[in-house]
Amino acid sequence: MNHSRAVLQMDVFAVPGDRHKGWYLSLMAPNTKGPEFAWLDPSRLYCNSQALADCAKDLLSPFQSDNIDLVVGIDAMGFILGASVATTLGKGFLAVRKAGHLCVATQGQNYTDYTGKEKTMEVRLDVLRPGLRVLLVDQWIETGGTMKATIQLVEKLGATVVGVAAVAIENTEGGRWIKENYKFSHCIPEELQSQIDGKYLESFKSFNN
Amino acid sequence: MNHSRAVLQMDVFAVPGDRHKGWYLSLMAPNTKGPEFAWLDPSRLYCNSQALADCAKDLLSPFQSDNIDLVVGIDAMGFILGASVATTLGKGFLAVRKAGHLCVATQGQNYTDYTGKEKTMEVRLDVLRPGLRVLLVDQWIETGGTMKATIQLVEKLGATVVGVAAVAIENTEGGRWIKENYKFSHCIPEELQSQIDGKYLESFKSFNN
Repeated sequence: MNHSRAVLQMDVFAVPGDRHKGWYLSLMAPNTKGPEFAWLDPSRLYCNSQALADCAKDLLSPFQSDNIDLVVGIDAMGFILGASVATTLGKGFLAVRKAGHLCVATQGQNYTDYTGKEKTMEVRLDVLRPGLRVLLVDQWIETGGTMKATIQLVEKLGATVVGVAAVAIENTEGGRWIKENYKFSHCIPEELQSQIDGKYLESFKSFNN
Repeated sequence: MNHSRAVLQMDVFAVPGDRHKGWYLSLMAPNTKGPEFAWLDPSRLYCNSQALADCAKDLLSPFQSDNIDLVVGIDAMGFILGASVATTLGKGFLAVRKAGHLCVATQGQNYTDYTGKEKTMEVRLDVLRPGLRVLLVDQWIETGGTMKATIQLVEKLGATVVGVAAVAIENTEGGRWIKENYKFSHCIPEELQSQIDGKYLESFKSFNN
Protein backbone atom coordinates (compact mmCIF):
# COMPACT_ATOMS: atom_id res chain seq x y z
CA MET A 1 0.00 0.00 0.00
CA ASN A 2 1.75 3.15 -1.11
CA HIS A 3 0.97 6.72 -0.27
CA SER A 4 -0.18 7.63 -3.79
CA ARG A 5 -2.99 5.10 -3.37
CA ALA A 6 -4.27 6.91 -0.30
CA VAL A 7 -4.19 10.21 -2.17
CA LEU A 8 -6.53 8.76 -4.78
CA GLN A 9 -9.11 7.96 -2.09
CA MET A 10 -12.50 9.52 -2.74
CA ASP A 11 -13.45 12.46 -0.52
CA VAL A 12 -15.43 11.13 2.39
CA PHE A 13 -18.45 13.38 1.82
CA ALA A 14 -18.52 13.30 -2.00
CA VAL A 15 -21.58 11.93 -3.77
CA PRO A 16 -21.25 11.24 -7.51
CA GLY A 17 -24.06 12.27 -9.86
CA ASP A 18 -24.28 8.71 -11.15
CA ARG A 19 -24.74 6.46 -8.12
CA HIS A 20 -24.01 3.12 -9.84
CA LYS A 21 -24.27 -0.11 -7.81
CA GLY A 22 -21.62 -0.13 -5.12
CA TRP A 23 -20.43 3.44 -5.83
CA TYR A 24 -19.79 3.94 -2.11
CA LEU A 25 -17.26 1.08 -1.96
CA SER A 26 -14.62 3.53 -3.18
CA LEU A 27 -15.05 5.38 0.12
CA MET A 28 -13.54 2.41 1.97
CA ALA A 29 -10.05 2.98 3.35
CA PRO A 30 -7.23 0.55 2.63
CA ASN A 31 -5.18 -0.80 5.54
CA THR A 32 -2.00 1.20 6.16
CA LYS A 33 -0.96 -0.60 9.35
CA GLY A 34 0.32 -3.99 8.28
CA PRO A 35 -0.74 -7.63 8.18
CA GLU A 36 -2.32 -7.89 11.63
CA PHE A 37 -5.11 -5.55 10.58
CA ALA A 38 -8.09 -6.00 8.27
CA TRP A 39 -7.16 -5.22 4.66
CA LEU A 40 -9.97 -2.71 4.18
CA ASP A 41 -11.96 -0.49 6.52
CA PRO A 42 -15.58 -0.23 5.33
CA SER A 43 -16.50 2.08 8.21
CA ARG A 44 -15.34 5.15 6.28
CA LEU A 45 -18.33 4.79 4.00
CA TYR A 46 -20.74 5.17 6.94
CA CYS A 47 -19.51 8.76 7.34
CA ASN A 48 -21.14 9.69 4.03
CA SER A 49 -24.88 10.01 4.60
CA GLN A 50 -25.82 9.03 1.04
CA ALA A 51 -23.44 6.06 1.15
CA LEU A 52 -24.87 4.86 4.46
CA ALA A 53 -28.44 5.23 3.15
CA ASP A 54 -27.65 3.48 -0.16
CA CYS A 55 -25.73 0.71 1.60
CA ALA A 56 -28.65 0.04 3.99
CA LYS A 57 -31.10 0.11 1.08
CA ASP A 58 -28.95 -2.31 -0.96
CA LEU A 59 -28.71 -4.73 1.97
CA LEU A 60 -32.49 -4.66 2.41
CA SER A 61 -33.30 -4.93 -1.27
CA PRO A 62 -33.60 -8.76 -1.56
CA PHE A 63 -35.80 -8.84 1.57
CA GLN A 64 -38.51 -6.43 0.41
CA SER A 65 -41.17 -9.13 0.37
CA ASP A 66 -40.02 -10.80 3.60
CA ASN A 67 -41.51 -10.22 7.02
CA ILE A 68 -38.73 -9.12 9.35
CA ASP A 69 -39.53 -8.55 13.03
CA LEU A 70 -36.10 -7.58 14.29
CA VAL A 71 -32.58 -6.83 13.07
CA VAL A 72 -29.70 -8.58 14.86
CA GLY A 73 -26.26 -6.95 14.65
CA ILE A 74 -22.88 -8.34 15.64
CA ASP A 75 -20.43 -6.70 18.09
CA ALA A 76 -18.91 -4.21 17.35
CA MET A 77 -18.94 -2.88 13.75
CA GLY A 78 -22.09 -4.83 12.89
CA PHE A 79 -23.87 -2.57 15.37
CA ILE A 80 -23.47 0.43 13.04
CA LEU A 81 -24.81 -1.10 9.86
CA GLY A 82 -27.35 -3.19 11.81
CA ALA A 83 -28.79 -0.20 13.66
CA SER A 84 -28.92 1.81 10.45
CA VAL A 85 -30.69 -1.05 8.64
CA ALA A 86 -33.12 -1.48 11.58
CA THR A 87 -33.93 2.24 11.63
CA THR A 88 -34.36 2.33 7.85
CA LEU A 89 -36.73 -0.64 8.12
CA GLY A 90 -38.56 0.77 11.17
CA LYS A 91 -37.69 -2.30 13.25
CA GLY A 92 -35.90 -2.86 16.54
CA PHE A 93 -32.26 -3.89 16.96
CA LEU A 94 -30.78 -6.71 19.06
CA ALA A 95 -27.05 -6.78 19.86
CA VAL A 96 -25.16 -10.07 19.75
CA ARG A 97 -22.14 -9.41 21.94
CA LYS A 98 -18.66 -10.71 22.58
CA ALA A 99 -18.72 -12.74 25.80
CA GLY A 100 -18.71 -10.99 29.17
CA HIS A 101 -20.42 -7.72 28.36
CA LEU A 102 -24.09 -8.35 29.04
CA CYS A 103 -25.32 -7.88 32.64
CA VAL A 104 -28.28 -10.21 32.10
CA ALA A 105 -28.76 -13.96 31.55
CA THR A 106 -27.37 -15.03 28.16
CA GLN A 107 -27.01 -17.94 25.79
CA GLY A 108 -23.43 -18.40 24.54
CA GLN A 109 -21.99 -19.97 21.41
CA ASN A 110 -18.32 -20.83 20.96
CA TYR A 111 -16.60 -20.36 17.62
CA THR A 112 -13.15 -20.02 16.10
CA ASP A 113 -12.40 -16.52 14.79
CA TYR A 114 -10.43 -15.61 11.67
CA THR A 115 -7.13 -15.66 13.61
CA GLY A 116 -7.84 -19.20 14.89
CA LYS A 117 -8.73 -18.10 18.44
CA GLU A 118 -11.57 -19.74 20.39
CA LYS A 119 -14.17 -17.11 21.21
CA THR A 120 -17.76 -16.90 22.44
CA MET A 121 -20.66 -14.78 21.25
CA GLU A 122 -23.58 -14.13 23.59
CA VAL A 123 -27.18 -13.05 23.30
CA ARG A 124 -29.68 -12.12 26.00
CA LEU A 125 -32.43 -14.67 26.69
CA ASP A 126 -35.37 -12.29 26.93
CA VAL A 127 -35.86 -11.20 23.32
CA LEU A 128 -35.56 -14.05 20.79
CA ARG A 129 -38.43 -16.55 20.76
CA PRO A 130 -40.09 -18.99 18.36
CA GLY A 131 -41.98 -17.21 15.60
CA LEU A 132 -39.68 -14.18 15.59
CA ARG A 133 -38.18 -13.55 12.16
CA VAL A 134 -34.78 -11.84 12.21
CA LEU A 135 -32.31 -10.36 9.72
CA LEU A 136 -28.66 -10.76 10.75
CA VAL A 137 -26.23 -7.94 9.92
CA ASP A 138 -22.46 -7.68 10.21
CA GLN A 139 -19.94 -5.40 8.56
CA TRP A 140 -17.92 -8.01 6.69
CA ILE A 141 -18.03 -11.79 6.52
CA GLU A 142 -14.56 -13.27 6.08
CA THR A 143 -14.34 -16.81 7.52
CA GLY A 144 -17.99 -16.64 8.58
CA GLY A 145 -17.25 -17.93 12.09
CA THR A 146 -18.89 -15.09 14.00
CA MET A 147 -21.92 -15.09 11.73
CA LYS A 148 -22.33 -18.86 11.99
CA ALA A 149 -22.19 -18.60 15.80
CA THR A 150 -24.85 -15.87 15.64
CA ILE A 151 -27.07 -18.02 13.40
CA GLN A 152 -26.70 -20.86 15.91
CA LEU A 153 -27.65 -18.58 18.82
CA VAL A 154 -30.74 -17.28 17.03
CA GLU A 155 -31.87 -20.77 16.04
CA LYS A 156 -31.14 -22.30 19.48
CA LEU A 157 -33.58 -19.78 20.93
CA GLY A 158 -36.19 -20.78 18.36
CA ALA A 159 -36.24 -17.65 16.20
CA THR A 160 -36.04 -17.81 12.40
CA VAL A 161 -33.15 -16.42 10.34
CA VAL A 162 -34.78 -14.61 7.41
CA GLY A 163 -31.40 -13.72 5.99
CA VAL A 164 -27.82 -12.56 6.41
CA ALA A 165 -26.50 -9.15 5.26
CA ALA A 166 -23.01 -7.64 5.17
CA VAL A 167 -21.05 -5.16 3.07
CA ALA A 168 -19.14 -8.17 1.72
CA ILE A 169 -19.33 -11.95 2.05
CA GLU A 170 -16.04 -13.54 1.02
CA ASN A 171 -16.14 -16.87 -0.82
CA THR A 172 -14.40 -18.71 1.99
CA GLU A 173 -15.70 -22.07 3.22
CA GLY A 174 -17.82 -20.29 5.85
CA GLY A 175 -18.97 -17.55 3.50
CA ARG A 176 -20.08 -20.14 0.96
CA TRP A 177 -21.88 -22.13 3.68
CA ILE A 178 -23.90 -19.02 4.54
CA LYS A 179 -24.70 -18.31 0.88
CA GLU A 180 -25.78 -21.92 0.29
CA ASN A 181 -27.99 -22.18 3.37
CA TYR A 182 -29.52 -18.72 3.88
CA LYS A 183 -30.94 -15.89 1.87
CA PHE A 184 -28.26 -13.18 1.82
CA SER A 185 -27.37 -9.72 0.62
CA HIS A 186 -24.14 -7.79 0.23
CA CYS A 187 -22.91 -4.67 -1.57
CA ILE A 188 -20.23 -6.07 -3.87
CA PRO A 189 -21.00 -5.95 -7.60
CA GLU A 190 -20.45 -9.37 -9.22
CA GLU A 191 -17.44 -8.18 -11.22
CA LEU A 192 -15.64 -7.17 -8.01
CA GLN A 193 -16.29 -10.32 -5.95
CA SER A 194 -13.04 -11.98 -7.07
CA GLN A 195 -11.08 -8.93 -5.90
CA ILE A 196 -12.82 -9.14 -2.51
CA ASP A 197 -11.94 -12.82 -2.25
CA GLY A 198 -8.38 -12.14 -3.38
CA LYS A 199 -8.04 -9.04 -1.20
CA TYR A 200 -6.87 -7.15 -4.26
CA LEU A 201 -7.54 -3.44 -4.26
CA GLU A 202 -6.93 -2.23 -7.79
CA SER A 203 -10.56 -2.40 -8.78
CA PHE A 204 -11.67 -0.18 -5.92
CA LYS A 205 -9.25 2.41 -7.18
CA SER A 206 -11.20 2.41 -10.43
CA PHE A 207 -14.31 3.50 -8.52
CA ASN A 208 -12.56 6.72 -7.59
CA ASN A 209 -13.45 8.62 -10.74
CA MET B 1 -32.15 -8.08 42.36
CA ASN B 2 -34.68 -10.88 42.89
CA HIS B 3 -36.51 -12.98 40.36
CA SER B 4 -39.89 -11.36 40.98
CA ARG B 5 -38.40 -8.08 39.74
CA ALA B 6 -37.46 -9.70 36.46
CA VAL B 7 -40.97 -11.08 36.07
CA LEU B 8 -42.36 -7.55 36.34
CA GLN B 9 -40.19 -6.46 33.41
CA MET B 10 -42.17 -5.01 30.53
CA ASP B 11 -42.51 -7.24 27.47
CA VAL B 12 -39.77 -6.31 25.05
CA PHE B 13 -42.13 -5.63 22.14
CA ALA B 14 -44.95 -3.94 24.08
CA VAL B 15 -45.92 -0.36 23.22
CA PRO B 16 -48.24 1.43 25.66
CA GLY B 17 -51.14 3.50 24.31
CA ASP B 18 -49.87 6.49 26.28
CA ARG B 19 -46.24 7.01 25.30
CA HIS B 20 -45.29 9.43 28.11
CA LYS B 21 -41.75 10.86 28.20
CA GLY B 22 -39.26 8.07 28.86
CA TRP B 23 -41.90 5.29 28.63
CA TYR B 24 -39.29 3.03 27.03
CA LEU B 25 -36.96 3.21 30.03
CA SER B 26 -39.02 0.44 31.64
CA LEU B 27 -37.76 -1.84 28.87
CA MET B 28 -34.24 -1.64 30.29
CA ALA B 29 -33.02 -4.81 32.00
CA PRO B 30 -31.56 -4.72 35.50
CA ASN B 31 -28.18 -6.35 36.13
CA THR B 32 -28.50 -9.92 37.40
CA LYS B 33 -24.78 -10.75 37.32
CA GLY B 34 -23.22 -8.89 40.25
CA PRO B 35 -21.15 -5.83 40.99
CA GLU B 36 -18.61 -6.09 38.17
CA PHE B 37 -21.34 -5.40 35.62
CA ALA B 38 -23.27 -2.25 34.74
CA TRP B 39 -26.34 -1.85 36.93
CA LEU B 40 -28.74 -1.49 34.01
CA ASP B 41 -28.72 -2.63 30.39
CA PRO B 42 -30.35 -0.01 28.15
CA SER B 43 -29.79 -2.13 25.04
CA ARG B 44 -33.02 -4.08 25.61
CA LEU B 45 -34.99 -0.99 24.66
CA TYR B 46 -33.39 -0.92 21.19
CA CYS B 47 -35.17 -4.22 20.42
CA ASN B 48 -38.51 -2.41 20.48
CA SER B 49 -38.89 -0.47 17.24
CA GLN B 50 -41.11 2.23 18.75
CA ALA B 51 -38.76 2.60 21.72
CA LEU B 52 -35.72 2.94 19.46
CA ALA B 53 -37.51 5.50 17.28
CA ASP B 54 -38.78 7.50 20.27
CA CYS B 55 -35.38 7.36 21.97
CA ALA B 56 -33.60 8.67 18.84
CA LYS B 57 -36.26 11.38 18.44
CA ASP B 58 -35.91 12.44 22.09
CA LEU B 59 -32.11 12.65 21.79
CA LEU B 60 -32.42 14.82 18.67
CA SER B 61 -35.17 17.03 20.05
CA PRO B 62 -32.98 19.82 21.55
CA PHE B 63 -30.92 19.99 18.34
CA GLN B 64 -33.76 20.62 15.88
CA SER B 65 -32.48 24.10 15.00
CA ASP B 66 -28.80 23.12 14.95
CA ASN B 67 -26.82 22.28 11.84
CA ILE B 68 -25.31 18.82 12.29
CA ASP B 69 -23.01 17.43 9.59
CA LEU B 70 -22.13 14.09 11.14
CA VAL B 71 -22.99 11.86 14.11
CA VAL B 72 -20.07 10.43 16.10
CA GLY B 73 -20.73 7.28 18.14
CA ILE B 74 -18.56 5.62 20.77
CA ASP B 75 -17.37 1.98 20.70
CA ALA B 76 -19.28 -0.29 21.19
CA MET B 77 -22.83 0.34 22.43
CA GLY B 78 -22.76 3.97 21.30
CA PHE B 79 -22.58 2.60 17.76
CA ILE B 80 -26.19 1.36 17.99
CA LEU B 81 -27.84 4.53 19.23
CA GLY B 82 -25.45 6.70 17.20
CA ALA B 83 -26.17 4.90 13.93
CA SER B 84 -29.90 5.00 14.62
CA VAL B 85 -29.72 8.75 15.39
CA ALA B 86 -27.62 9.35 12.25
CA THR B 87 -30.06 7.41 10.06
CA THR B 88 -33.05 9.21 11.61
CA LEU B 89 -31.32 12.52 10.92
CA GLY B 90 -30.21 11.50 7.41
CA LYS B 91 -26.54 12.09 8.28
CA GLY B 92 -23.42 9.96 8.22
CA PHE B 93 -21.86 8.14 11.16
CA LEU B 94 -18.26 8.17 12.38
CA ALA B 95 -17.02 5.50 14.81
CA VAL B 96 -14.72 6.49 17.67
CA ARG B 97 -13.00 3.24 18.57
CA LYS B 98 -11.15 1.60 21.42
CA ALA B 99 -7.44 1.61 20.58
CA GLY B 100 -6.01 -0.91 18.15
CA HIS B 101 -8.97 -1.62 15.92
CA LEU B 102 -8.62 0.84 13.06
CA CYS B 103 -6.41 -0.17 10.12
CA VAL B 104 -5.79 3.46 9.11
CA ALA B 105 -3.90 6.42 10.59
CA THR B 106 -5.55 7.64 13.80
CA GLN B 107 -5.44 10.28 16.49
CA GLY B 108 -5.53 8.82 20.02
CA GLN B 109 -6.67 10.23 23.34
CA ASN B 110 -5.88 8.63 26.70
CA TYR B 111 -8.44 8.62 29.51
CA THR B 112 -9.27 6.83 32.72
CA ASP B 113 -12.37 4.63 32.50
CA TYR B 114 -15.00 4.05 35.21
CA THR B 115 -12.97 1.19 36.71
CA GLY B 116 -9.87 3.40 37.00
CA LYS B 117 -8.04 1.77 34.07
CA GLU B 118 -5.96 3.84 31.62
CA LYS B 119 -7.42 3.47 28.15
CA THR B 120 -7.19 5.11 24.73
CA MET B 121 -9.89 6.08 22.26
CA GLU B 122 -8.99 6.54 18.60
CA VAL B 123 -10.46 8.24 15.59
CA ARG B 124 -9.39 8.10 11.94
CA LEU B 125 -7.70 11.23 10.58
CA ASP B 126 -9.50 11.44 7.24
CA VAL B 127 -12.99 12.56 8.26
CA LEU B 128 -13.03 15.27 10.95
CA ARG B 129 -11.91 18.72 9.82
CA PRO B 130 -12.43 22.37 10.79
CA GLY B 131 -15.95 23.55 10.03
CA LEU B 132 -17.52 20.12 10.51
CA ARG B 133 -20.29 20.17 13.13
CA VAL B 134 -20.80 16.88 14.96
CA LEU B 135 -23.23 15.39 17.47
CA LEU B 136 -21.63 12.90 19.88
CA VAL B 137 -23.66 9.87 20.96
CA ASP B 138 -23.02 7.19 23.56
CA GLN B 139 -25.32 4.77 25.34
CA TRP B 140 -24.75 5.96 28.90
CA ILE B 141 -22.50 8.57 30.49
CA GLU B 142 -21.34 7.51 33.94
CA THR B 143 -17.98 9.08 34.84
CA GLY B 144 -17.86 10.84 31.48
CA GLY B 145 -14.27 9.75 30.80
CA THR B 146 -14.89 8.16 27.41
CA MET B 147 -17.08 11.02 26.26
CA LYS B 148 -14.54 13.63 27.39
CA ALA B 149 -11.80 11.79 25.46
CA THR B 150 -14.08 11.78 22.41
CA ILE B 151 -14.76 15.51 22.75
CA GLN B 152 -10.99 16.08 22.93
CA LEU B 153 -10.41 13.99 19.79
CA VAL B 154 -13.06 15.86 17.84
CA GLU B 155 -11.77 19.26 18.93
CA LYS B 156 -8.08 18.35 18.37
CA LEU B 157 -8.98 17.67 14.74
CA GLY B 158 -10.69 21.04 14.49
CA ALA B 159 -14.33 19.94 14.25
CA THR B 160 -17.07 21.50 16.38
CA VAL B 161 -19.04 19.61 19.03
CA VAL B 162 -22.66 20.68 18.54
CA GLY B 163 -23.78 18.54 21.45
CA VAL B 164 -23.63 15.34 23.45
CA ALA B 165 -26.45 12.76 23.62
CA ALA B 166 -26.93 9.60 25.68
CA VAL B 167 -29.80 7.61 27.21
CA ALA B 168 -28.60 8.91 30.58
CA ILE B 169 -25.98 11.35 31.83
CA GLU B 170 -25.23 10.73 35.50
CA ASN B 171 -24.51 13.72 37.73
CA THR B 172 -20.94 12.64 38.39
CA GLU B 173 -18.08 15.15 38.17
CA GLY B 174 -17.56 14.25 34.50
CA GLY B 175 -21.26 14.16 33.70
CA ARG B 176 -21.71 17.62 35.23
CA TRP B 177 -18.67 18.92 33.30
CA ILE B 178 -20.33 17.82 30.05
CA LYS B 179 -23.67 19.39 31.00
CA GLU B 180 -22.00 22.67 31.99
CA ASN B 181 -19.84 22.97 28.86
CA TYR B 182 -21.89 21.48 26.01
CA LYS B 183 -25.44 21.37 24.79
CA PHE B 184 -26.76 17.94 25.71
CA SER B 185 -29.74 15.61 25.56
CA HIS B 186 -30.76 12.46 27.40
CA CYS B 187 -33.90 10.38 27.95
CA ILE B 188 -34.32 10.56 31.71
CA PRO B 189 -37.36 12.52 33.00
CA GLU B 190 -36.33 15.04 35.65
CA GLU B 191 -38.12 13.18 38.45
CA LEU B 192 -36.04 10.05 37.76
CA GLN B 193 -32.58 11.67 37.52
CA SER B 194 -31.86 11.14 41.24
CA GLN B 195 -32.59 7.44 40.87
CA ILE B 196 -30.18 7.29 37.91
CA ASP B 197 -27.52 9.01 39.98
CA GLY B 198 -28.22 6.77 42.97
CA LYS B 199 -28.49 3.63 40.82
CA TYR B 200 -31.84 2.93 42.46
CA LEU B 201 -34.26 0.89 40.43
CA GLU B 202 -37.62 1.18 42.18
CA SER B 203 -38.82 4.00 40.01
CA PHE B 204 -38.26 2.08 36.79
CA LYS B 205 -40.49 -0.63 38.19
CA SER B 206 -43.26 1.96 38.36
CA PHE B 207 -43.00 2.41 34.59
CA ASN B 208 -44.12 -1.18 34.11
CA ASN B 209 -47.87 -0.55 34.27
